[in-house]
Amino acid sequence: MGLIKNARHPFYEHCHSALNEIRQQGRYRTFTPLARLAERFPLYEEEVAAVPEGREVVVWSTNDYLGMGVVPEVQEAAIAAIREHGAGAGGTRNIAGTSPLHTQLEAELASLHGKEAGLLFVSGYVSNQASLQTILTSMPGWICFSDRMNHASMIAGIKGARGSQTVIFEHNDLADLEAKLAEAPAEAPKLIAFESVYSMDGDMADIAGICALARKYNAITYLDEVHAVGLYGEEGGGVSQRDGVADQVDIIEGTLAKGFGVHGGYITASAEIVDFLRSTASGFIFTTALPPAVVGAALTSVRKVRAEGWRREKMFERVNTFRQRLRAAGIPFTMTPSHIVPVPIGDAETCKRISRRLLTEYGQYATPINYPTVAKGTERLRLTPGPFHTDEMMDEMVRALSVLLREEGVIPGRSAAERQTEKAA
Amino acid sequence: MGLIKNARHPFYEHCHSALNEIRQQGRYRTFTPLARLAERFPLYEEEVAAVPEGREVVVWSTNDYLGMGVVPEVQEAAIAAIREHGAGAGGTRNIAGTSPLHTQLEAELASLHGKEAGLLFVSGYVSNQASLQTILTSMPGWICFSDRMNHASMIAGIKGARGSQTVIFEHNDLADLEAKLAEAPAEAPKLIAFESVYSMDGDMADIAGICALARKYNAITYLDEVHAVGLYGEEGGGVSQRDGVADQVDIIEGTLAKGFGVHGGYITASAEIVDFLRSTASGFIFTTALPPAVVGAALTSVRKVRAEGWRREKMFERVNTFRQRLRAAGIPFTMTPSHIVPVPIGDAETCKRISRRLLTEYGQYATPINYPTVAKGTERLRLTPGPFHTDEMMDEMVRALSVLLREEGVIPGRSAAERQTEKAA
Ligand SMILES: Cc1ncc(COP(=O)(O)O)c(C=O)c1O
Ligand SMILES: Cc1ncc(COP(=O)(O)O)c(C=O)c1O
Repeated sequence: MGLIKNARHPFYEHCHSALNEIRQQGRYRTFTPLARLAERFPLYEEEVAAVPEGREVVVWSTNDYLGMGVVPEVQEAAIAAIREHGAGAGGTRNIAGTSPLHTQLEAELASLHGKEAGLLFVSGYVSNQASLQTILTSMPGWICFSDRMNHASMIAGIKGARGSQTVIFEHNDLADLEAKLAEAPAEAPKLIAFESVYSMDGDMADIAGICALARKYNAITYLDEVHAVGLYGEEGGGVSQRDGVADQVDIIEGTLAKGFGVHGGYITASAEIVDFLRSTASGFIFTTALPPAVVGAALTSVRKVRAEGWRREKMFERVNTFRQRLRAAGIPFTMTPSHIVPVPIGDAETCKRISRRLLTEYGQYATPINYPTVAKGTERLRLTPGPFHTDEMMDEMVRALSVLLREEGVIPGRSAAERQTEKAA
Repeated sequence: MGLIKNARHPFYEHCHSALNEIRQQGRYRTFTPLARLAERFPLYEEEVAAVPEGREVVVWSTNDYLGMGVVPEVQEAAIAAIREHGAGAGGTRNIAGTSPLHTQLEAELASLHGKEAGLLFVSGYVSNQASLQTILTSMPGWICFSDRMNHASMIAGIKGARGSQTVIFEHNDLADLEAKLAEAPAEAPKLIAFESVYSMDGDMADIAGICALARKYNAITYLDEVHAVGLYGEEGGGVSQRDGVADQVDIIEGTLAKGFGVHGGYITASAEIVDFLRSTASGFIFTTALPPAVVGAALTSVRKVRAEGWRREKMFERVNTFRQRLRAAGIPFTMTPSHIVPVPIGDAETCKRISRRLLTEYGQYATPINYPTVAKGTERLRLTPGPFHTDEMMDEMVRALSVLLREEGVIPGRSAAERQTEKAA
C-alpha cells in the first residue's frame, strides 16, 4: 500500500485488492503490444523485452478475418478521406459531423442486409448497447428473451433497460425458448436477442427457427451478425443472407471492425425503427461521429466484400486445411460449423503459459481466452486462420502446438528429450 | 401506416407515433451533410438540394476547436499508420488489438494530466459510461453526487450502475453540494461527478472548491474535461491544469475528438484505478481497439497541442473579437468564461429556421441546439469561433445574424425592406 497516494478513500483499497484477487486467480491480463505489418499480414512485429527487438510473429487471433484492413484500396480510401476531410469528424452527427460518406455507408449497409435503412455507431459494442437499451425502454412491459451466450454488449443494453424484464433461454435451445415465450403474457411486447455466429465456441443459431417462433409469439428479432458479416452469404451479408432469412429478422446488427477490417458498428432495420433509434438513442446522439476516414475505408471495404467472393472462399479453404493438419497431428480442437477453431486448454494459467511459449519460442501468436470472456474451466486458444495464412505457417503452428500441448500436459505427452529431437528436425 | 411491413408487433406502431410526436414538437432532426475541406477549414462543402451543388459553407459549430484534425502533421501521422498497420486494429485490446501506439498514447495522456496512467476508450461517451458504471458498482453502497447539468454519457454510466444511489446537486452550486454531502452517511463510498466546461452554456466549475468538499467529506472526484482539453492550461491539460488542481482530482476524463481533433476518449488516474478499469470495465474489454491510425494521429495531436500554445491563444483572441463584433451589432449572446458563444433563440422551430436560413441564404452554418440537448425554452445557436475564422468570415456571420434575428423576431426588428437594402450594401 506504500505506493498509493490519497488512499483514504476506500475505492483505492478496493482497486488494490481486486487486482490482487484477479492476479491470484490467474486472470490478470497483460496486453501483448503487436504492430500489424500491413504489407505482410498476418505477420506482426512484437515489441517486448522477451524477444529480440522487432521480432516478427504470425498472428492467429485477428478478427480482421479476411484481411480487409490491409487491402490497398481500403487503405487508400482512408488516406483519401484524411487528406480531403482531416483526421476526425469534428462533431456529433447532428453538429456538423455527418459527412456524405456517413450517409452513403448507411445506405450501403441497408442494401447489404436488404433493409430499408442503416445507422452507424462508434462501435459494434455501442450499437448493441444503445439499440437494445433504447428499444427495451421505449414502451412499458418489454420482455427480452436473451440467449444465454449473448455477447457482453447485448447484455449491457438489456441490463441497462430499466423496467424491462429479461428471460434468458438456454443457448441455441429452441424448445426452451418456445417454452419461455409460451409462458409470457401474450400482450407484452417481446424481443428475441441472439447471435448468428457465437465467436468463442464458433457455433451458429438456427435463425429461421427462431424467426418462426418470433412470428408465432409475436416477438421482434434482434440479430447480432458481428462475427458473420463479410464471411457468410452471397455478398457477405452474414448467416441470415446465406440462409435466405434476412427479411424475417427485424433488426440486424453488425460491426465494421471484423470481417470488414475497419472500425465502427451499425444496425439495419425498417426506416422507422432506424429513424426512431437515430432520434432517441443517447449512445448514438451524444457522441462524436466516426471519422470520415474510417467511414470511407469501411464503405470501400463493404463494396469490395460484396463484389469479391474469393476472400471468403479462400478463408474457408484455409480453415479446412488447418483443421486437417491439426487432426493429422492429433491436436484436439472443437469442430464448428463456422470459421472459428477453438483449441481447448481448460485452465487459465496453462492457457496463458502456452500462449506465451508459442510467442517466445515459436513466434506464433494466439490469444489465451480466459474468464470472463469464457466460463472458468473452458479456457482455450481461439484460432482464426484467414486467406493469408500459408501452408508453411500452418506447418509451423501445428508443430509448435503439438510440442507445447504435450509438454504442458494438455494431451498425453512426449518427453522434453523427444521434443528436442523434434525441434532439431 | 400503409408503408410499414410486418407491422403486427407494437414496436413498429410505437416508432411511427413517437416520430410523429417528435415532428409535431419541432424536434425532428435532419442531419446536414457537410464535407469538411481539410485544406480550407473552417470551410465545408454542403451537398443538399437546397443549395447549388458543392456550395462552400463557413462552419461555426465544429468541436474541432483548434482545427487539429486538419494540421498536416496530424493527417500524416494517420496516413503513416494506415500504410504501416492497415485501416483497423483487427481485434480487442486483449486480442491482438494493442499496438505500441496505444500504449504510447496512454502514457502521453497520463503525463498531460500529471497522472500515473491513462486508458483509451472508443469514445469520450464510452469512457464516461463505462468508467462511472464500473466504479459505482465496484463496492456496495456507492453514492454518486452528480451535477444537474452533467452530460448524457455520464448520466448513462451513473444510471447504469444498479445498486448505487444518485444525488443530483444544483448546477455548479457548492453550497447545495455540501449540504447533500453532509446529509449522506459518512461511511458510504462517495463520488462527485462534474465537468470543467459545460459545453452548451459555456460556464465552468469551481474545481478547487469541489475538490475541497471532496476532501472534507471523503469523496473521490470524477472530472469530465471533454470541452477543455487542448484549450486550457499551459499545455492544454484542461481547466484543472490551468487552475493548478489536477493533482486534487482522482479521475480526469477527456476526449480526443474535440480540442485534439481526432477520435476516441480516455481517462487518467492512479495506476491502480486505471488497471482496475482496464481489467473489469465491460465497455473497455469487449470491443475492438481504436484503429492505429486514429491513435497515431491523436498522439501527434496531443504532442503538438502540448508544445504549441499559439492555437489556443489565437482561438481566444478570435472568440473575443467575435464577441466584440456581436456586441457592436446588438446581437445578444451569453457571456461565458469559456470559448463558447451561445446565441439564445428560445424556440425550437425558430432556432431551426434561423439555422436553415443562415445556411441557404448566407452560406454560414451553425447547428440549432434544441431539446433534448438543452431544456425546452432555452434553444440556441452555439458558436465556437476558432483560430481559422477570419475577420471577413466574422463580418459576414454578424451581418447575417443581425438580419435574421430581427426578421425572425428574436430581437426588435427591421423590416424586410430594410433587410433588402442591407443585403444589397
Ligand atoms: C458478438 C459480438 N458483438 C459485438 C461485438 C462488439 O463489436 P465491436 O468490436 O465493433 O465493438 C463483439 C466483439 O467485439 C462481439 O463478439
Ligand atoms: C461533456 C461531454 N462529455 C463527453 C462527450 C462525449 O465525447 P465523445 O464525442 O468523444 O464521445 C461529450 C460530447 O460529445 C460531451 O459534451
